[in-house]
Amino acid sequence: MFAVTILGNNSALPMHDRHPTAQVVTYDEHLMLVDCGEATQMQMTRYKIRRSKIHHIFISHLHGDHYFGLAGLLNSYSLNGRKDDLHLYASPPLMEILHLQFQAANTELTYHLHFHPLTAEGRIMEEKKYTVDCFPVTHRIACWGFLFREKEKLRKLIPEKLKEFAIPSNFYSRLKTGEDYIDRDGNVILNDWVARPGGQARSYAFCADTKYEENIIERVKGVNLLYHESTYLDDLRERARLRFHSTAKEAATIALKAGVGRLLIGHFSSKYEELDEFQIEAERVFANSELALEGVTYRV
Amino acid sequence: MFAVTILGNNSALPMHDRHPTAQVVTYDEHLMLVDCGEATQMQMTRYKIRRSKIHHIFISHLHGDHYFGLAGLLNSYSLNGRKDDLHLYASPPLMEILHLQFQAANTELTYHLHFHPLTAEGRIMEEKKYTVDCFPVTHRIACWGFLFREKEKLRKLIPEKLKEFAIPSNFYSRLKTGEDYIDRDGNVILNDWVARPGGQARSYAFCADTKYEENIIERVKGVNLLYHESTYLDDLRERARLRFHSTAKEAATIALKAGVGRLLIGHFSSKYEELDEFQIEAERVFANSELALEGVTYRV
Repeated sequence: MFAVTILGNNSALPMHDRHPTAQVVTYDEHLMLVDCGEATQMQMTRYKIRRSKIHHIFISHLHGDHYFGLAGLLNSYSLNGRKDDLHLYASPPLMEILHLQFQAANTELTYHLHFHPLTAEGRIMEEKKYTVDCFPVTHRIACWGFLFREKEKLRKLIPEKLKEFAIPSNFYSRLKTGEDYIDRDGNVILNDWVARPGGQARSYAFCADTKYEENIIERVKGVNLLYHESTYLDDLRERARLRFHSTAKEAATIALKAGVGRLLIGHFSSKYEELDEFQIEAERVFANSELALEGVTYRV
Repeated sequence: MFAVTILGNNSALPMHDRHPTAQVVTYDEHLMLVDCGEATQMQMTRYKIRRSKIHHIFISHLHGDHYFGLAGLLNSYSLNGRKDDLHLYASPPLMEILHLQFQAANTELTYHLHFHPLTAEGRIMEEKKYTVDCFPVTHRIACWGFLFREKEKLRKLIPEKLKEFAIPSNFYSRLKTGEDYIDRDGNVILNDWVARPGGQARSYAFCADTKYEENIIERVKGVNLLYHESTYLDDLRERARLRFHSTAKEAATIALKAGVGRLLIGHFSSKYEELDEFQIEAERVFANSELALEGVTYRV
């Protein structure tokens, strides 16, 4: 499974039982947390997130609605006696803030917290089956988007064909990467005869808080699922611009221009109690648009 | 009205839909916040606390479950365009933590935040009708209890008697403090003839996180309402001692020895889903014991 579960879809001022930004990205048995607004740990309980499975936390930027729940979560891990290492990716000042908080409380975490300061675009994490990259978005303070990309899938071998062409098993791993096999007599066994495509590699891009900025398009081109904030509706596009936020129409425009599979919009301003208009406005530009709803899991 | 509303009654690990410590003390139109665990601002919304009426916040100590909701609340005030000054009373490191957080977010509050570092026992606030004192309790780090005490009530004048004894109106304020009146001929008009008692001054003591410590008794002697933590039940008194917390029995013992009117217990460990046993254990020692329940307002 490759999916994202929304724990908070509201902008800074919590209201209408909506919460500040937090998402859990699941890849098979790996859980990763993206942003951690206040009360994220309560939302995890509410939506039965297996929080002990989280080993990587990515914080997009240091506005409180994206990290004020982090210190509480880190504390709770310690109270639960966590032993597993935890990796935290965020702008450099966060380490100092956490350090002061732990120091004031005389807290020694029961686990090792690795802090990875975000300072430049690029690869920040690599696992066997997927990678995570960060890229800058345009907000009032330094702010990072994250791209979760499955590695190119290996080709699937066809057992009866391997037998038929008598291919030695020590060549199987090379077949999986697409190589042809040449036997002792110089006969070429085309890869296509003994293997089939492994399925398309999938990707999810999280664009954090950002104003409408076409620089993003190149970064998220063709992803299966794009999360783009849409704090306001189109009639407040001027306010969005001034506050370095986006409208639903703008989010959908990015999705359209980047040719993504599906668009997820969120970070709704507290001034909107109802969200229907967001859906309508986004769909008008990009049909495959959805609201990011709390507690809902969206497959990549 | 003089009352306290519980917003969080759980210990550090939020669970069973219980929240970390936060209470609102109301005196007439004045609201004061005591501790501000994570998600306090959401609890304020849930229980319809008029948060704009809060001008004073008291933080007992810097364990996260007593202040991790503060930065979010301060931020939200700013997002709502608050103009009124806000006074914050807490251990000195909190100011540095908040400063770093605001700096990282490039936040300028829309209102003036006055920080009052807590460093010694004594009077920290005086209003027309009540005072607030802090006193040390015994926890793993510096920790303060708070005593909210109504000033001695002025005596109530009896209009028809004032007329009968022809007391000049410029002497009324001295009558209210209990003085007798002596007229030009040397006749003594006893205060009791023209005024009646103003009612008893009330008081509320919040004892924060503390182990069983008889030093507290003197500080909270005879208060109308005492909040004393009871993280555990008696069978875990050893664990309570080691962690500088108290049991229900210990809280009730303090209440009994201090001769208070009523005891409120809270800060229940997450290991207890049901709380009935706390009530039973406390009542056995001190009959007038109650559980601090979230959303409930207790009159002083």
